[in-house]
Formats: sequence, structure tokens, C-alpha cells
Amino acid sequence: MARLTYKDAGVDVKAKASMLSGIAGAVRSTFTDRVLNEPGAFAGCFRASFPGMKDPVLVATNDGVGTKTKVAARVGDHRGIGADIVGHCINDALVQGAEPLFFLDYFASAHLDRAVFEAVVEGAAQACRAHGIALLGGETAEMPDVYVAGEYDFAGFLVGVVDRAKMWPKDVAPGDALVGVASSGLHTNGFSLVNRLADRGSIDLTRDPGGLGTTLGLALLAPHRPYLRPMVALRERMPVHAISHITGGSFAKNLPRVLPEGVGAEVDLASWTPPPLFRHLVAAAGLSGVEPYEFLNMGCGLVVVVPKELAMRAVAELQALGERAWVIGRLVPGAGVRLVGGEIGVR
Amino acid sequence: MARLTYKDAGVDVKAKASMLSGIAGAVRSTFTDRVLNEPGAFAGCFRASFPGMKDPVLVATNDGVGTKTKVAARVGDHRGIGADIVGHCINDALVQGAEPLFFLDYFASAHLDRAVFEAVVEGAAQACRAHGIALLGGETAEMPDVYVAGEYDFAGFLVGVVDRAKMWPKDVAPGDALVGVASSGLHTNGFSLVNRLADRGSIDLTRDPGGLGTTLGLALLAPHRPYLRPMVALRERMPVHAISHITGGSFAKNLPRVLPEGVGAEVDLASWTPPPLFRHLVAAAGLSGVEPYEFLNMGCGLVVVVPKELAMRAVAELQALGERAWVIGRLVPGAGVRLVGGEIGVR
Repeated sequence: MARLTYKDAGVDVKAKASMLSGIAGAVRSTFTDRVLNEPGAFAGCFRASFPGMKDPVLVATNDGVGTKTKVAARVGDHRGIGADIVGHCINDALVQGAEPLFFLDYFASAHLDRAVFEAVVEGAAQACRAHGIALLGGETAEMPDVYVAGEYDFAGFLVGVVDRAKMWPKDVAPGDALVGVASSGLHTNGFSLVNRLADRGSIDLTRDPGGLGTTLGLALLAPHRPYLRPMVALRERMPVHAISHITGGSFAKNLPRVLPEGVGAEVDLASWTPPPLFRHLVAAAGLSGVEPYEFLNMGCGLVVVVPKELAMRAVAELQALGERAWVIGRLVPGAGVRLVGGEIGVR
Repeated sequence: MARLTYKDAGVDVKAKASMLSGIAGAVRSTFTDRVLNEPGAFAGCFRASFPGMKDPVLVATNDGVGTKTKVAARVGDHRGIGADIVGHCINDALVQGAEPLFFLDYFASAHLDRAVFEAVVEGAAQACRAHGIALLGGETAEMPDVYVAGEYDFAGFLVGVVDRAKMWPKDVAPGDALVGVASSGLHTNGFSLVNRLADRGSIDLTRDPGGLGTTLGLALLAPHRPYLRPMVALRERMPVHAISHITGGSFAKNLPRVLPEGVGAEVDLASWTPPPLFRHLVAAAGLSGVEPYEFLNMGCGLVVVVPKELAMRAVAELQALGERAWVIGRLVPGAGVRLVGGEIGVR
């Protein structure tokens, strides 16, 4: 029987090494003087001195971009995928009050496509650099027969730090106001639905269905918005009790994650009109009532919990910080999340 | 056109939530009093006080198990996959001298299979518990059309800590001895070859081809051996200059990662006989000479760099610590890795 080398088996170690050296410059550009390793080390090394913190707490989170990769492939533009996962991880660590320190990426596919790999990882490096995050390491895997040919997965891991006294959630109680902060689009959730809609011809990624100012494809690829800067600034200016990052499972899944026992939430769906991108998808899928609010952010990427009397000030501060914000609901005694607002639907 | 819900699109949010609650007990069992969150938080929170360390350095690494998952599926036993990735990450952090603190996992597939998911994550939790590592968080993704139906990927992310003065590599120089430490098998590399061999009928996973004491399938699934305990103990007993974790790309790729400029390595292939598992695979693939040593560990999972005069003592200490160890080569002036040892092949 014929000889079978490792390359015959679908894994080209040399091609991979060449690809990795191609991104080394972008990776190194994120390194600060706290990073002690070179790109390509077995592990990244980051100095853990946190002067000024009495009781530093490391906050670690990981996420994937889901099937947004497939939309990137349909559009032929992978540059935002790296920023997506960095933004997603930044926000998840921020929920605990943490500011990010370093990030690692995981890229896997059946066969590595150099152009796609570089676009994704360089996008991640750029997003890291913009937030002072070291892209400390990563893993790149070639897994024939596990991934569908031409597809890839991209996941990220982020570690941040917060002084224990500044951790969120804190002092959350019934009566607190909920302030919504606008998303940049779907962020990284709901893309399996988008792909099915595209498969069956219910949406056309190449045109503007109305109100997007760009093609549907590019609107869908808008990177996941990171809320680090405005939330760090807001915390300096007024008390914040908690924030919730509206990701998979939307309000019902994510708000309770920051609420103590005995506290529920009411989200007023009449308080905002979902942006055109969401209205178009909801219509194309034939969804109605609260259905889309159960798995899409519908235009609200973050919910900020503040004392009731500070709700309008929080809105004003966030707007001054460049965010679109509005009072989206309130906390009540009880449990779970009620979506209220009379006739709910696509307005 | 028909309505399309998120569940229709292939993502069942409720089924996923139920699966995640199923593993919460195993996850919580790894929590120490340094962990401040509950399972299911947006991010894991870990107290970063390192008493006794003058200059603590966080060491972060991530890895996947590669197509070992496919062999697990062929054999129908996924319990070792979690331990595989924990072992792999422990060793990569250990290369910098670090002891592990916490771990996060990433599990993704086209559709989540509860039994497989639980076997893998509970295996990871068990391996974490055995090494005092908190399984601080994780992400579980359902990505129809990105993964091949029935396949999954499992990746891990580990953070450890080391006092800067104890970091490896240190004082590595020509003349140093290389001590090999036995692997438990292929660890997590070379499985694309194994899968191709199984596809074409060159190997039979259900029987013992000779000398394994178990079926070939089970021998291949032996979890990636973690070298934390013996290396921490060895470091207490004698000076160690560096260790290299022999993973993808084997000796030629991994030894240089811990060698300074101007230092190369000679690995003496006559110093050991590869175990029966490797000899069987090499014969089945029709490989010869140094070929298998270019991508398989061939029975050596770790190389320890020690002062020349301490080589035999290192071997004796490692053996006393329960490892199989032998002098496998030496460092020389130059660069790269030379595989020496006369007539090389399958003996």
C-alpha cells in the first residue's frame, strides 16, 4: 500500500510555520513592556504587578464568533472577525468590572487559507492594540474532516483585572433603572438564522434593503462593539451597579446573570425602535411579537444598571461619551425578565 | 415563505442551557476559595494574590486536541479528550516554569451531543481537580455547516504563574545534556495521519497489533501526560535550565523554542527504541528513516535541559519520581536540531 506522510494526511507543517511568521509583526505590535516572551513561545508571559490595587482579581473569559464566519465568507471580507471576538471578550470581562490585559486566539479550519488567516488575526491584533491589550499567544489548527471545507472557527480568550472593591455587580436592587446602550448590529449572535435566510433566498447580502447606507452583508459584518472606554469613564463619573452584555439568548438569558436572588427585570420594548437591520431580518424570517427579542439584541448591546434617580444622568453621560443610550426598563422584586410594552412587534 | 425561528436555523438555546446546567457540578468541584464567581457567569474571577513571589508573571497558553476527537469517535470513548487538553496546556505553561492556576474550555460542533459534551467536559474537570486547577469558565458553540456533522472541536486555555526569577529557560548553553521523558503515546499530535490510516484500512483500531496490552484504539486515546508534578519536584532537587514540550513538529520544531541564539541540539535516535504503538504506525504508513521523528514524539513527550554533569542524576531523580527517562542528546554550538544515531529507522 502507498506510503502516507503527514503532508499526505492533510497537515502541512511547513506551510503553517510560514503563515505564523507572517503574522508575527502584527502580534508583536501589541506587546507592551509587561510582555516577557517573543511570538512563537510555548506560552505567553505577562508581568502580574498591579500597583494601586488592594486585592486584584483576574477575570477570564472566552468566546467564539459563531457562524458570523460564514457571512464573512459569503461577503468575502474577513477583516472584522478578529475585532468581533476581541470586542466580545472585552465586554464579557467588563461585566465583572475588569479592564483587559491580554488576549489569545484560536483559529481552526480543515485547511489553512493564508489570506483569510492573516485578515482575521491582523484584525484581532489591531483591535487589541486599540485597547492596549497584548495579543499574548494563539493556536492555529488544521483539522481535515472536522471542519467543512472552506469554513473556519475563530475563538478568543481574554484575561483582565479588577480591584475586588470595584467589581460588578454591586448593590443591585429592585427599583434600579436599566439603561440600554446601542449595539453596532447583531454583534456575534444570530448568524445561523442569517445564513439560513441567505440559503433560502429570503435576504440578499449584496444590496441595501433600506436604511442601512451599505449592503446588508457589510451591515451584518459590523464588528462587535466594545464598551470599555465609555464604561470606564462612566464609572468615574457616577455609581454603576452592574452591566449586562446582551449576547446569545438576548435579554432573558443575560440580564439574570447579573441580578441577585429575588430581583427580576422589566424591559420596555416600546422604549426603542429596532434599527432597520433588525427589522429587515425579522420580516425576512417571518418572526413576530417577542420572538426576535429572545435571541437577537435588537439594537441594544449592553444594559447598564444604575440607581433610579441617576437614570437620565447616565443616559446623558453615555451620549456625551459617544454612545446612543436610553432608559430601557427597571428592576423589580421577583425573578426572570419580563418583556413589556403593549403591542410588541416590528414597528 | 415559511417562518424561520432560531431553533429552525439549527440552534436550540434551551437544549444548550440544559446541557450547561448538567456540567455545573463538575465545574464547581474544581473551584477553590480563590474563585469568586459561580458557574455561568460572564467571566471567571480568580484572586490574584501570589504571596511569596517577588515578581509574579502570568503564563498563558491555549491549544486544541486536533483530530484526536475523530479517533475518540471511532472508538466511542470521549472521556480522555478533556484530560488531553488540560495535560497539553499544563505542559506548555510548565515550559516557562509556571504552575497552573485556572483553565477555560471551548467546545464547538455542528449540533451539541449531550453525552459527548458531558464526557469531554467532565474529563477536563477531573484533570483540573487532580492538579488543583480551577475550571473557571468555558464556551459552548453550536455551528451548523461549519463543523462536519457528528464532529467537534475542543480547545483549552490555561493561565499559570511563576516568579520571574524561577522562569525557564535559564542559563541554557552548549554542552548541556538533554534528558528525554517518556510520553503516554501520541499525546495530541499526529492524529490526522492515524485517521487516514484507519480510513484506508491500514490499521485496525479494535485489536492489539502486538505489545500494546490493549486495543490500538484505546492505546491511541491514552491522555496527554502532564509533567507538572515530576518537574516541580525535580526543580526542588537540582538545577534545571529548560524543558521543551514535544508537540506538533516534534523535536525540530519544539527544541529550538527554548534555545538561545547560537545554540543547537543533537538528538540521538539510537538512545531509545520507540514504543510498539509508534513502530506499528510507522510501519502501517510506510515511513522510514527520520520521517516519523519529524512530526511524532516517538515516545518522548518532554525534553529536560540540565547541566552536563547532572544528566545521570536527572535521569535517576525522574525515574524515582515515576517517569521513564534517559539521556537523549546534548546542546551544541550552532542552530537547529540534528537527529543523529547512525542507521535510523524502526527497530
